Amino acid sequence: MAKLLDPARLGEFGLIEALKHRARVAGHAWAEAIGDDAAILRPRKDHELALTADALVEGVHFRWETTDPRSLAHKTLAVNLSDLAAMGARPRGFLLSLALPPIAVPQRLDGFVAGLLGAARRFACPLVGGDIVSSPAWMFSVTAVGELPRGTALLRRGARPGDRVMLTGQVGGSALGLALLEAGAGRETGARPFVRRHLKPEPRLEAGQKLRRWGIARAALDVSDGVAQDLGHLARASGVGAELDIDRLPRPRGFGAACQKLGLEADDLALAGGEDFELLFAVPRKAPEASVFSKRLGCPVAEIGRIRGGRGVSLLRDGEPVTLARLGFDHFKPAAPSTDK
Amino acid sequence: MAKLLDPARLGEFGLIEALKHRARVAGHAWAEAIGDDAAILRPRKDHELALTADALVEGVHFRWETTDPRSLAHKTLAVNLSDLAAMGARPRGFLLSLALPPIAVPQRLDGFVAGLLGAARRFACPLVGGDIVSSPAWMFSVTAVGELPRGTALLRRGARPGDRVMLTGQVGGSALGLALLEAGAGRETGARPFVRRHLKPEPRLEAGQKLRRWGIARAALDVSDGVAQDLGHLARASGVGAELDIDRLPRPRGFGAACQKLGLEADDLALAGGEDFELLFAVPRKAPEASVFSKRLGCPVAEIGRIRGGRGVSLLRDGEPVTLARLGFDHFKPAAPSTDK
Repeated sequence: MAKLLDPARLGEFGLIEALKHRARVAGHAWAEAIGDDAAILRPRKDHELALTADALVEGVHFRWETTDPRSLAHKTLAVNLSDLAAMGARPRGFLLSLALPPIAVPQRLDGFVAGLLGAARRFACPLVGGDIVSSPAWMFSVTAVGELPRGTALLRRGARPGDRVMLTGQVGGSALGLALLEAGAGRETGARPFVRRHLKPEPRLEAGQKLRRWGIARAALDVSDGVAQDLGHLARASGVGAELDIDRLPRPRGFGAACQKLGLEADDLALAGGEDFELLFAVPRKAPEASVFSKRLGCPVAEIGRIRGGRGVSLLRDGEPVTLARLGFDHFKPAAPSTDK
Repeated sequence: MAKLLDPARLGEFGLIEALKHRARVAGHAWAEAIGDDAAILRPRKDHELALTADALVEGVHFRWETTDPRSLAHKTLAVNLSDLAAMGARPRGFLLSLALPPIAVPQRLDGFVAGLLGAARRFACPLVGGDIVSSPAWMFSVTAVGELPRGTALLRRGARPGDRVMLTGQVGGSALGLALLEAGAGRETGARPFVRRHLKPEPRLEAGQKLRRWGIARAALDVSDGVAQDLGHLARASGVGAELDIDRLPRPRGFGAACQKLGLEADDLALAGGEDFELLFAVPRKAPEASVFSKRLGCPVAEIGRIRGGRGVSLLRDGEPVTLARLGFDHFKPAAPSTDK
């Protein structure tokens, strides 16, 4: 077995060499200049590049005591790739900025790197460069690069009144997984799919690219803050309002019962839980039924609301307006609920 | 005057909106999708993209007590652009991952953003996207994207025995500036150019692109860790050794006297001080004299050593080998000297 990635033993440059070596072993030979001053990517002509950055900080987005380094690494990359999926881009590579405490535990770094390279292989998105610095807390910052034909990106803006709002997959599962972990119930019968969804989310890369090629979506984004709040982002970027039918929100099998067992409001979790990394998009009124989307995108698709004039998002249950207290997560608002990213 | 960027008042999304607004006001309209899931860049066909990431952490790379936020921002971007310069790339845009303590001082963030957008304008490299998270310590992570014609990047590898080693500008000035600041002598007569060099380095963007277009350099990198250590990186990547003539290292005017006054070894600072962000490159034996490089690259260029067979870097003074204790900075080696990044 290869030696652990021990920052104190290897030093900065030894660490970079070890990372390069592992990336090469894992087949990341695609990037020309890994370890050079900058990574080189070679986009095809007439293509655009989509770039996205996301950071995870120890004590804010994760705690080592309750975190498996491999899952954390998977999630760090998956979160970024979900942003590329939401643009309809094909991932081409990513950079990693790694901030480590001087006494970083080698097993953690080692597990993180193994998880990261595994996720990179799974999502066909190689590590092409980055930076390693010391820091009081662990921090992982990933910048992912995706490619797409010029002018075809799925933007958040573009939705128009009358458009229908569609959603891939289900929502609420990730937040329930987190709640189960926090309640110490992560290993109970039936908990596993929710926990897995929270720890190892799958970005909708295929569906995003298919949707982009189809050209039917007027606006799109990925569900990271919670479907209600993210619909608000889409509506705001488009200069419109929206309605969301709570009872049409698809939830995972066993979701309601598991929520009840933990004393959680299922609607609240489904609307505001966040981190489901599904795609939320607006299509013209005349677009086909959800089942046709399902078939073409290769994943479940449901119709969950509509775009209207005005501003803001209204929540409807059985066609009647309702209000809910908690609508997603904001990093700096003083009263924000503390939750995993 | 615009309101301060107060994280507690604005919240995460308000902060993003304020950043977008300021970037627009500063003329960064070039990126299509700022604030969307990912930023879109539009490279020309047959071009490659160079990507580089660098992070700065509070308490490690800077301390607020001794840091001007505008200078810090300038440096954060400049450090990344220097990596692009060393590839010969033209900057096209950058992403910012911003990690802020929940009680971040608005004046600091405000100054940082002003400095960042100012540097972005100066270097013609707009802010195109990023991420904001909360964190126990401030951290700024920048990923810059540059463009260059396919297959023309100046890589670290490629130097061959017999090549001559060239250097733009002077070295040691930044380390001296830091020493002056730490000695509380930053405002004394004659200190200013060194302090400025430390706080507001200028990446050699023009020279890097001219060198790349010329096609004469076999290998190149920027001097960030110290010229001796960086020559070691170039030699190692090229699978060769190198010799460095200490007495041929160009130093800024007044450097020796200022070092003496502080009780510092001038050679040590020039060789190992780091952060000069000059370009170090290897050219074939038959290449023109340094003065011709100076003219074509539009900046001072000196010949400071040569590539040879074998491994490692030998230091020569008056043609005789010497050894020096301190050769640059490594973030994790336990015995590493503590210095600014």
